[in-house]
Amino acid sequence: VYAQVLYDFAAEPGNNELSIREGETITITNQNIGGGWIEAKNSRGEVGLVPEDYIEVSNVFDNNASGGFSNNWAAQPEGTETGKTSSNAWPSGGHGHPQAYQGPGNNSNKPMVLITISFLYDVDVYTVYTVFQSGEVGPVWAYPDYQLDCVVADPKKGSKLYGLKSYIEYQVTPTTTNKPVNHRYKHFDWLYERLLEKFGSAIPIPCLPDKQVAGRFEDEFIKMRMERLQGWMTRMCRHPVISSSEVFQLFLSYKDEKDWKMGKRKAEKDETVGVMVFSTIEPEGLPDLDLIEVEQKCDQFNRFTRAMDDGVKDLLTIGNEHWKRCTGPLPKEYQRIGKAFQNLSSVFTSSGYEGEAALTDALTAAGKTYEEIAQMVAEQPKKDLHFLMETNNEYKGLLGCFPDTVGVHKAAIEKVKEADKLVAAGKITPSDKTTMSKRASTMSYSLQAEMNHFHSNRIYDYNRVMQQYLEQQVKFYEMIADKLRHAHSQFTTM
Amino acid sequence: VYAQVLYDFAAEPGNNELSIREGETITITNQNIGGGWIEAKNSRGEVGLVPEDYIEVSNVFDNNASGGFSNNWAAQPEGTETGKTSSNAWPSGGHGHPQAYQGPGNNSNKPMVLITISFLYDVDVYTVYTVFQSGEVGPVWAYPDYQLDCVVADPKKGSKLYGLKSYIEYQVTPTTTNKPVNHRYKHFDWLYERLLEKFGSAIPIPCLPDKQVAGRFEDEFIKMRMERLQGWMTRMCRHPVISSSEVFQLFLSYKDEKDWKMGKRKAEKDETVGVMVFSTIEPEGLPDLDLIEVEQKCDQFNRFTRAMDDGVKDLLTIGNEHWKRCTGPLPKEYQRIGKAFQNLSSVFTSSGYEGEAALTDALTAAGKTYEEIAQMVAEQPKKDLHFLMETNNEYKGLLGCFPDTVGVHKAAIEKVKEADKLVAAGKITPSDKTTMSKRASTMSYSLQAEMNHFHSNRIYDYNRVMQQYLEQQVKFYEMIADKLRHAHSQFTTM
Repeated sequence: VYAQVLYDFAAEPGNNELSIREGETITITNQNIGGGWIEAKNSRGEVGLVPEDYIEVSNVFDNNASGGFSNNWAAQPEGTETGKTSSNAWPSGGHGHPQAYQGPGNNSNKPMVLITISFLYDVDVYTVYTVFQSGEVGPVWAYPDYQLDCVVADPKKGSKLYGLKSYIEYQVTPTTTNKPVNHRYKHFDWLYERLLEKFGSAIPIPCLPDKQVAGRFEDEFIKMRMERLQGWMTRMCRHPVISSSEVFQLFLSYKDEKDWKMGKRKAEKDETVGVMVFSTIEPEGLPDLDLIEVEQKCDQFNRFTRAMDDGVKDLLTIGNEHWKRCTGPLPKEYQRIGKAFQNLSSVFTSSGYEGEAALTDALTAAGKTYEEIAQMVAEQPKKDLHFLMETNNEYKGLLGCFPDTVGVHKAAIEKVKEADKLVAAGKITPSDKTTMSKRASTMSYSLQAEMNHFHSNRIYDYNRVMQQYLEQQVKFYEMIADKLRHAHSQFTTM
Repeated sequence: VYAQVLYDFAAEPGNNELSIREGETITITNQNIGGGWIEAKNSRGEVGLVPEDYIEVSNVFDNNASGGFSNNWAAQPEGTETGKTSSNAWPSGGHGHPQAYQGPGNNSNKPMVLITISFLYDVDVYTVYTVFQSGEVGPVWAYPDYQLDCVVADPKKGSKLYGLKSYIEYQVTPTTTNKPVNHRYKHFDWLYERLLEKFGSAIPIPCLPDKQVAGRFEDEFIKMRMERLQGWMTRMCRHPVISSSEVFQLFLSYKDEKDWKMGKRKAEKDETVGVMVFSTIEPEGLPDLDLIEVEQKCDQFNRFTRAMDDGVKDLLTIGNEHWKRCTGPLPKEYQRIGKAFQNLSSVFTSSGYEGEAALTDALTAAGKTYEEIAQMVAEQPKKDLHFLMETNNEYKGLLGCFPDTVGVHKAAIEKVKEADKLVAAGKITPSDKTTMSKRASTMSYSLQAEMNHFHSNRIYDYNRVMQQYLEQQVKFYEMIADKLRHAHSQFTTM
């Protein structure tokens, strides 16, 4: 039995694993390993365990299952890229995207309507995502009254196959049920793939933290990954469309293994993916937009995301350099100052002069204070700059996938522009053309709602991270002042 | 008329001056210029003004005037260096030295006796400097009850020769008379030369601040020179032997020009110079030391000054690097952080999203705060590190001349060791030998008093400079914390 490798997987050394690369064909040698693992052999004849979710055993997947419907929804533009797992006609462009977050919050000017979807993953309703007109900012998503959230915590090393295979399992607890569920990184990755497939054309889905780095069982790495998974989940929870989707609800609150397996299978067979998602979006009571207006909105947002991308990258570059200085030369210098004071103190002690002790004690204490400051300086970036960097890193990822999302809309506009020719050539009916225009309008409202979602989240996030950064900076400088004040008090000139 | 150049003098460009070098012979072309200037011609035929104190007109000085007496006081060791302006037999080694300062202060364990000298410069008494035994620290100078001090201030640009010549005059006000006198740098230099000549064998006389740098009329330079002249004068005032000397009193409190000129002439003819100064030192009630003890004291002090010299130089190197970082890369980085925040703020302003103003204002303010911090960081070294560096620089100079001073004593010890041979050879009498031993003992007491003077001043100076440094450091970090606290208060997450 052959299998196709879907994602890169790097074997953990000494763990009986086999490294595989995306696109590689491998031979299944033992499908009955269990615990999510399969034994396989690569073309070089090497044998080892690979995660079953990373490969596609031949004749299991059928990427064209949902192909029929999408062609009815809008005409396929020629030469445009087709989404990998979505065969519908619109350019999905949805590979490896971030997204935007929590809505304009408790802004009273904006209609707040709980959208009519089930919060139970196993009720199969045809969900409709509504876009409203807000007096203040324009089209916005309908936000739920209750802000979903979750806590990712308590990473535990588990093992399967009688200790042969190790993995890390995180506890995910949604605020709705307060009942924890366990997920491994590969489950998060599965969720990401489903969200990208389903919503990627309308909503930029942010990448998960890096799939694989060396030493994935090291505490430092586990902590960092957990923190980033938490950040990713928080963003997903804050998004009214994502958070209310069946697949996301499944992930947060499945009842048992059986429930999870069934839900997974169902999600993988979901046909409302790619641009089909626009068929589930309803601009409630909003007039159709004209093409020029739609284009202008796209261009404005494109300009903004590009400018912000530059600003964010600039801040990251500077932050990185500052980090290096704070953890490298600067504490080294404070340490040298500290050592120089202590050295002078011990020279003074050797003078043989009476009444030297008060000065030498004070000098030693001052020297030690500067050594403490050196350590504080070196440890500070983890306490403040880290969060500033993480937030900007998230935004860098998010901004990086906006051009693709906007691209989907641009392609739709181009298609509508060609519609007159297609009607004349008899390839589509005038009624098809009207439908296409209407749908381009829906896509534009959806993009605008997404932009507003992005902006309101951005304002919240940057306020929060700047508060956190400055608060820690204040504490840092206050603590240094305190330490130096104490060192100062030990010197005396009578 | 020919003249010998005593010191280098660099002409101020466009000021009608002539550059001259030590050792050069020049021709006086006009001795009646006045204002301390003489017109002269060098060997290349160039004519210009030179300061009269920088040259020695032939047949005016007689370096050997005090030669006779010194040979009676102690036998001249062969092959030892002879002081330039002191023809006596002992190695003076006194070129370009710093010194040590204020005595053990109001320490009640130590006899405090006002030494019997006149505080009026024009009374010609044979001054005796007394060394006492302090129970705590050993031999100490007798310190006056009243601590002399002075203020060097108010540098004024003066001119002579109807504006042809410019110079800077400093106001020197002693705390005794509270009556200011004016002195130009060249007068300080004259005082330095007299003190070096008279006391250099017993007391390390610290160098004056650098004689000449480019742009000597620039405000920055004048301020720095004044500060250093103040430091030098404070050290001289604190020294019980120096401060009570006639020449020093003349400098601080001459009545008028005539008085000053007469006093100068008298000081230049003083015969109690070089090792002759030891004849004016009286170890009161102290037993003669044996040679071994004298040698041990010398060696101990040598070791200490060498170790402290290393420590001080180390601190200076580190301080210099820290200075560079604080005025170069560090503020540049804070400035870039500030600019990055402000840049992000202006990108956000361009979003077109309503309700952005609070965040963008706060971000701009935070950015400006970091720019202010950048400036504070760059200006801080002048407020704290500067004084730490200046003090250590002074001590570096001071420590650098101790080996020479100790050398004078070592040479005397060697001579006494040879005395038996000289007696056997009939070159000196047994009574001469006894006198030599007694005088070596006096020199040792004098050195020990000087060491103790150095130590007590060192303890005072380092306590003071560390207090000052740490106080400014505390203020600096507190001010940063204040600024950041204010910046923090402008962000809001509801």
